[in-house]
Amino acid sequence: MTSKPFFRGRLIAIGGNEDKVNELVVLKRVVQEVGKAEYKVGVVTTASDEPEQRGKEYHKVFTTLEASAIEILNIKTRAQANDRTLAKKLEDVDLIFLAGGDQLRLTTIVGGSRILNSIQNRLEAGALVAGTSAGAAVFSDTMIYEGKSEEGLLKGRVLTTSGFGFVESIVFDTHFMTRGRIGRLVQIVTTNPTCIGVGIGEDSGVVLKGDGTVEIIGTGQVIIVDGSDITHSNIISIKPGGPIAVENVRIHSLVNGYGYNFKKRRFLVPSNNKPENIDD
Amino acid sequence: MTSKPFFRGRLIAIGGNEDKVNELVVLKRVVQEVGKAEYKVGVVTTASDEPEQRGKEYHKVFTTLEASAIEILNIKTRAQANDRTLAKKLEDVDLIFLAGGDQLRLTTIVGGSRILNSIQNRLEAGALVAGTSAGAAVFSDTMIYEGKSEEGLLKGRVLTTSGFGFVESIVFDTHFMTRGRIGRLVQIVTTNPTCIGVGIGEDSGVVLKGDGTVEIIGTGQVIIVDGSDITHSNIISIKPGGPIAVENVRIHSLVNGYGYNFKKRRFLVPSNNKPENIDD
Repeated sequence: MTSKPFFRGRLIAIGGNEDKVNELVVLKRVVQEVGKAEYKVGVVTTASDEPEQRGKEYHKVFTTLEASAIEILNIKTRAQANDRTLAKKLEDVDLIFLAGGDQLRLTTIVGGSRILNSIQNRLEAGALVAGTSAGAAVFSDTMIYEGKSEEGLLKGRVLTTSGFGFVESIVFDTHFMTRGRIGRLVQIVTTNPTCIGVGIGEDSGVVLKGDGTVEIIGTGQVIIVDGSDITHSNIISIKPGGPIAVENVRIHSLVNGYGYNFKKRRFLVPSNNKPENIDD
Repeated sequence: MTSKPFFRGRLIAIGGNEDKVNELVVLKRVVQEVGKAEYKVGVVTTASDEPEQRGKEYHKVFTTLEASAIEILNIKTRAQANDRTLAKKLEDVDLIFLAGGDQLRLTTIVGGSRILNSIQNRLEAGALVAGTSAGAAVFSDTMIYEGKSEEGLLKGRVLTTSGFGFVESIVFDTHFMTRGRIGRLVQIVTTNPTCIGVGIGEDSGVVLKGDGTVEIIGTGQVIIVDGSDITHSNIISIKPGGPIAVENVRIHSLVNGYGYNFKKRRFLVPSNNKPENIDD
């Protein structure tokens, strides 16, 4: 048994709406993490309801970011997701980028398909997988796909299903600050404090590292929701739709350069550029 | 020196949008807390931009709730707020109700006036003061009056000024779940962990008791934001507008019947109707 939380490879989860035209802080860091002077990228636009449009957008982005080859996979059906020729296009990519949209569309179409096998094979072979918005939500083993922010703390109003499981016991939520989604993650960690909630703001991301830590990148915030101190909740005794009471949820707000150790559930202050520590 | 947090009398803070036509759960409890078979109520509608309309609404509510006398004070100017005849109308009320709207309008017009003196005198004499939305926000000594939810964790984007100070070192925020305001309270407790943030959901409230505890009432939630465990933040070193990093903010979600002890910063499970405790 592996120690949880667990990352299944080199991954970057982005909170959506990353800058694609100005500084490209987040996307440049993605390319930098690939770690090759020449790199080939495969973009999967399945989550989007306008995949061609999204595909063109990322073709432009990765042209700007000097990819040596770009494969845009506008997969819209399960037949396409199982197409050997399409799956083969990912065979030698260094970077797979999962574009945003609706995570349920992505899992419904790509779940259990040849394309997903190809992605998993590339992850195991050491390629980098980056996803934004819906493309990051699918990283989780338990994936949130629906739930109004204001109903986040009503039992059962946060809908989840299986994600792609690139990480275990970590639940990613995205567009986190703009859509006020903290209640959704509090409900997730209340129902099972094994899970750590990671709410990623827009134009921000987390770089997952082999040692079980993440580094925060971008211009916004990442909120960690840790339920390991929870001492009481009413969730077992209330009916679906009832308001959740819960004691002792720990939250952290992290910004560019900060980190978090998932194994030790520990907040990490940047070492090379340490800001004033109020403890010092 | 009094031990903080501190309540200056009998108070009920309501998160806004309390039911006024169906079950009236929250407002019935307000009247019950008055503790008299016959009671006189004074309603101050200053926070509203339609005070007459709001006044009529609460006149109807308190008629339904069998008040023996109802004074509606549609105070719209500082001259009116200083009017001796108007201030005198609150002289013998058992309940003062501060209606919702904009808390900055309420403090700007009523701050430092005869009307506020009358309210404070009634509080000291043992009358109950209840406020909803803006009418609850003014209870705080440091009062939030502006700040977009999505900018709650950007330094300085939560604007505060002096409230009426009916409580010390407690900052009330309202419409809390529907407007996703947790970032605002996290910023407040990061800048000074002495303060405890209390985010009250709609149709919900907190009954403040003499022993430094509160009881939660209504159909929604109350979120407590406690910064006393904070070990690190970047707030001193970043510029206004910069994103805030902060380690170890403790939050609780409370529902009807639950409580919180402000002196001990402790979550209270209902004793007479104890739900399943996951510790048991």
